[in-house]
Amino acid sequence: MAVIKSEIRSGIYYDSAVLMQLQRSMSQLEGVQDAGVVMGTEENKEILAHIDLVNSEVNAAKPDDMVIVIRAENEAAALSAIEKVDELLTRKRSNVDQDYRPKSLEGAADMLPDASWVLISVAGRFAAGVARKALELGKHVFLFSDNVSVEDEISLKKTAAEKGLLVMGPDCGTAMISGIGLGFANKIRKGPIGVVAAAGTGLQQVTTRIHQLGSGITHGIGTGGRDLKDPVGAATFLMALDVLARDPETKVITLVSKPPAPQVAEKVIRKARQINKPVVINFIARKPTSRQEGNLWFATGMDDAAALSVQLAQNPPELKSTNQFPVEKFAKGQRYFRGLFSGGTLAYEAQFLLEGYIGRVWANAPINKENKLKDSLKSEENCIVDLGEDEFTVGRLHPMMDNEMRIRRLLEESRDPEVAVIMLDVVIGFGSHPDPASELAPAIVKAKQEAENAGRYLEVVVVATGTDEDPQNLDSQVAQLRAAGAWVSSSNEEVVNYAGSILRSINQPAEETFVFKPVDLETLSRKLEAINVGLESFAENLLAQETPTVHVDWRPPAGGNEKLANILERMKKFS
Amino acid sequence: MAVIKSEIRSGIYYDSAVLMQLQRSMSQLEGVQDAGVVMGTEENKEILAHIDLVNSEVNAAKPDDMVIVIRAENEAAALSAIEKVDELLTRKRSNVDQDYRPKSLEGAADMLPDASWVLISVAGRFAAGVARKALELGKHVFLFSDNVSVEDEISLKKTAAEKGLLVMGPDCGTAMISGIGLGFANKIRKGPIGVVAAAGTGLQQVTTRIHQLGSGITHGIGTGGRDLKDPVGAATFLMALDVLARDPETKVITLVSKPPAPQVAEKVIRKARQINKPVVINFIARKPTSRQEGNLWFATGMDDAAALSVQLAQNPPELKSTNQFPVEKFAKGQRYFRGLFSGGTLAYEAQFLLEGYIGRVWANAPINKENKLKDSLKSEENCIVDLGEDEFTVGRLHPMMDNEMRIRRLLEESRDPEVAVIMLDVVIGFGSHPDPASELAPAIVKAKQEAENAGRYLEVVVVATGTDEDPQNLDSQVAQLRAAGAWVSSSNEEVVNYAGSILRSINQPAEETFVFKPVDLETLSRKLEAINVGLESFAENLLAQETPTVHVDWRPPAGGNEKLANILERMKKFS
Repeated sequence: MAVIKSEIRSGIYYDSAVLMQLQRSMSQLEGVQDAGVVMGTEENKEILAHIDLVNSEVNAAKPDDMVIVIRAENEAAALSAIEKVDELLTRKRSNVDQDYRPKSLEGAADMLPDASWVLISVAGRFAAGVARKALELGKHVFLFSDNVSVEDEISLKKTAAEKGLLVMGPDCGTAMISGIGLGFANKIRKGPIGVVAAAGTGLQQVTTRIHQLGSGITHGIGTGGRDLKDPVGAATFLMALDVLARDPETKVITLVSKPPAPQVAEKVIRKARQINKPVVINFIARKPTSRQEGNLWFATGMDDAAALSVQLAQNPPELKSTNQFPVEKFAKGQRYFRGLFSGGTLAYEAQFLLEGYIGRVWANAPINKENKLKDSLKSEENCIVDLGEDEFTVGRLHPMMDNEMRIRRLLEESRDPEVAVIMLDVVIGFGSHPDPASELAPAIVKAKQEAENAGRYLEVVVVATGTDEDPQNLDSQVAQLRAAGAWVSSSNEEVVNYAGSILRSINQPAEETFVFKPVDLETLSRKLEAINVGLESFAENLLAQETPTVHVDWRPPAGGNEKLANILERMKKFS
Repeated sequence: MAVIKSEIRSGIYYDSAVLMQLQRSMSQLEGVQDAGVVMGTEENKEILAHIDLVNSEVNAAKPDDMVIVIRAENEAAALSAIEKVDELLTRKRSNVDQDYRPKSLEGAADMLPDASWVLISVAGRFAAGVARKALELGKHVFLFSDNVSVEDEISLKKTAAEKGLLVMGPDCGTAMISGIGLGFANKIRKGPIGVVAAAGTGLQQVTTRIHQLGSGITHGIGTGGRDLKDPVGAATFLMALDVLARDPETKVITLVSKPPAPQVAEKVIRKARQINKPVVINFIARKPTSRQEGNLWFATGMDDAAALSVQLAQNPPELKSTNQFPVEKFAKGQRYFRGLFSGGTLAYEAQFLLEGYIGRVWANAPINKENKLKDSLKSEENCIVDLGEDEFTVGRLHPMMDNEMRIRRLLEESRDPEVAVIMLDVVIGFGSHPDPASELAPAIVKAKQEAENAGRYLEVVVVATGTDEDPQNLDSQVAQLRAAGAWVSSSNEEVVNYAGSILRSINQPAEETFVFKPVDLETLSRKLEAINVGLESFAENLLAQETPTVHVDWRPPAGGNEKLANILERMKKFS
């Protein structure tokens, strides 16, 4: 019969690497079937129970306790294994060849004054304290530790913004600064692509693919997965984007994220739009707007992001200055989009794309039922009406042949003081009206004039679908519509993107200006030197990359006893 | 004071073009402010009310009635306008120069025996009857009419499938057959791209963009927007796809649709996958799986679909034979996917992509909360567990450093008789385990062996993220994993696509085999001749394209009186 034995050690701190090594060593002892060595958190106790390594002593362990538990073939083997714990613990040897190990960050900073970086991988509950100290010393922070509270993250990033420092993390798995990998990092060729990632393995996957495609990177800046969530608000992401925008070596910027909070993602994208470099974006599960918009390229996945980035770096595109529509032309209160379509598919695609810009779009023929317009004859907020739908065409010609209903509706919408942009489609070809622009253009002039008389500005945009060989001739239709003051393109996507970006600008939330001191580019581009606190293997890796590194012989305050640590902390404050 | 006068005419049929012309003429009479001439449906009466053209007589009109209503400046102008109705109605002249006008389809077919096509644009309630007759005569049907019931559509398409004929529509706006446009159609260059569209203006937008990019099309086959909805089940779409697959002139096939029913879309995609040509797919609002998969390219919009099609036609890609995994290797009941990840972003992307293949995927860190795994230690159905999540790493090394938890879980999953595919990520580089494959490969061998011993087959797939310059060396890791029997790629997307396609094959619904007689390709490629029933302008357009056309002088059965028509129809059946 198998026997389970345990030992609980309180008030002692060991890092996770030590726990793992002990667990491995114990599993290999004779007669031992399985072993677990973990801190006594609820989650860990559940895992132990799941693999049948539990007894009442284990159940009673507290999060601060080190739990050692084994299942052995018999009582004797179990006892003998438990007796070996101390011996096995002392066997651990260091691979970091360092004569003197400072006990504190300050000591390490004195030893390596040019170090701009502190890597932190101590247990989560101690990590914020170490990071705060590093910022006080003016160092960038690579914060590998997870289980750090979001309040601590916000406060750390606030301090960092004031000081022009980067806090990568918490839970930042990887970063690559000037060719040196921090944390989990691959060896990636140097090259023209700068990456910002709220996505640890995302950064690794994209950069390894870039490397495999023969290109390389300048810097890969991690932010921690929570950076693009609501309360943190992209603090590190925006600072990283800013520094890569200024970096002359970075020709293309690539952004990767785990599923972000939509409004935070949009904030980042607004910032990206202002950069005069191609920016490739892959935010997992973000609703697509389009494949390309100004200097932005939207990738369908990480493979695609890597491929697009390499391609853009090899063939730098000519960036058209983004069409900054002067939204101040609109009167106060003008803010809605109205689409009056004759073509059903054009109307559907417009809905799909437009939602990426302005959220809900009502429609008489909606993609999702919940967006169904209550009354097709009455527009609401942002909406799209397909006048070619069955409801409009019983005993009545299709709107591609008969413009009358649309002209009536156009004038009606233009009188709505909340309407800013009206979109029409003009579909020519055999079967369609012989000269639709001859009727629509005067109506557009009238609609714009009426709005102007009422002290408003109305933007009318038109997708003109047809060819130069059509009986109506596309060019002549476009010329008539443009002469009437409409913005015209033969691409539905282009028109919707244009309209969408105007509406987004109008409805842009008053940006809470995130003010930060810009990161000094030189601290990224100069030879990296670093201080490591926590997992020794991270120091080993830096040394393997020939990076001057000091490993701190860190111990938790008050030996890991949190109550005592809190008392000490309060005493410091009052002293 | 404005005066409203109306006139209701019962039991007379006029086509929509006549109504429009009368309305226009009446609006232009002196003293008339506005005029409406429509059939008295509820929708039309609402529209009249909306534009202030209503009185009690109009309100009482029935769907079969022609409603003539005007608003005039005064009584005299109103009366004088109404008096002119008959005169204005007779003014209409025909542009179709045709000596003799057959009264029936049969008559027209005798006049033009080589006509393979019948265009139908009569009022919806009569359209199915005309289409049925056309099929009886062995003609392809272009059914422009809308307001046709879905039951009629299903029955027409069933007949068509038996006869090897195409029913494009109802509500099919456009088609282009061998350079000749039917209905609303643009003049598009001849070229190597064949298009099938459940999307009228979608077909126009994509083909005009193809033309603008300098390329052209073989055929553009419309199906009507409802063809990809559930009850119709892609009947016309599948027949069209089949004929384009056989057409030697068609080098690339492009599929466009308004938002389809997801399961019908998948049915079409399964069919497309079997074609040995590149197929570009743009189904609006369909959840993306990937950018490319075998011979399929997924476009982000209509612009992108056109651009991709032209590109593929210009540079024909080498089509790898699609990886048809022999799913018969699996035992009965094996059907689930289990992902055991160390990388969070890889896990998120896998969720996102996999849902495109198999629907709901449970996860401990789900993209959408509703897919949250109840207990991270217990897998359910298809699921993805990120073992690098905070819950697993309190006082425990990250799974990129320590493979123990994953190996335990791998063996656990492999014992589940419902599991078919297990996915792992192996992320190497600085900081990661010095040789993860050395531990994972034996575990994979063991897992596969145990499954085999239990009479099952287990497929293990691995994304290996890293570079040739990493300390562990990517190639050596991949080699070890492959030797253990795993399917390995360095692209997360590629691995998920591979796994997804296996799972899709396993879980493929027993296909209700849609049996149809293949369409005779020659009827599409030979010079088009057509019979037109309904809008005269469609005949005019065909003649303008130098297409032999006979226009039928069609009148509704029993003069449009539906009761009488039904009696006649029943009498015919019993005769």
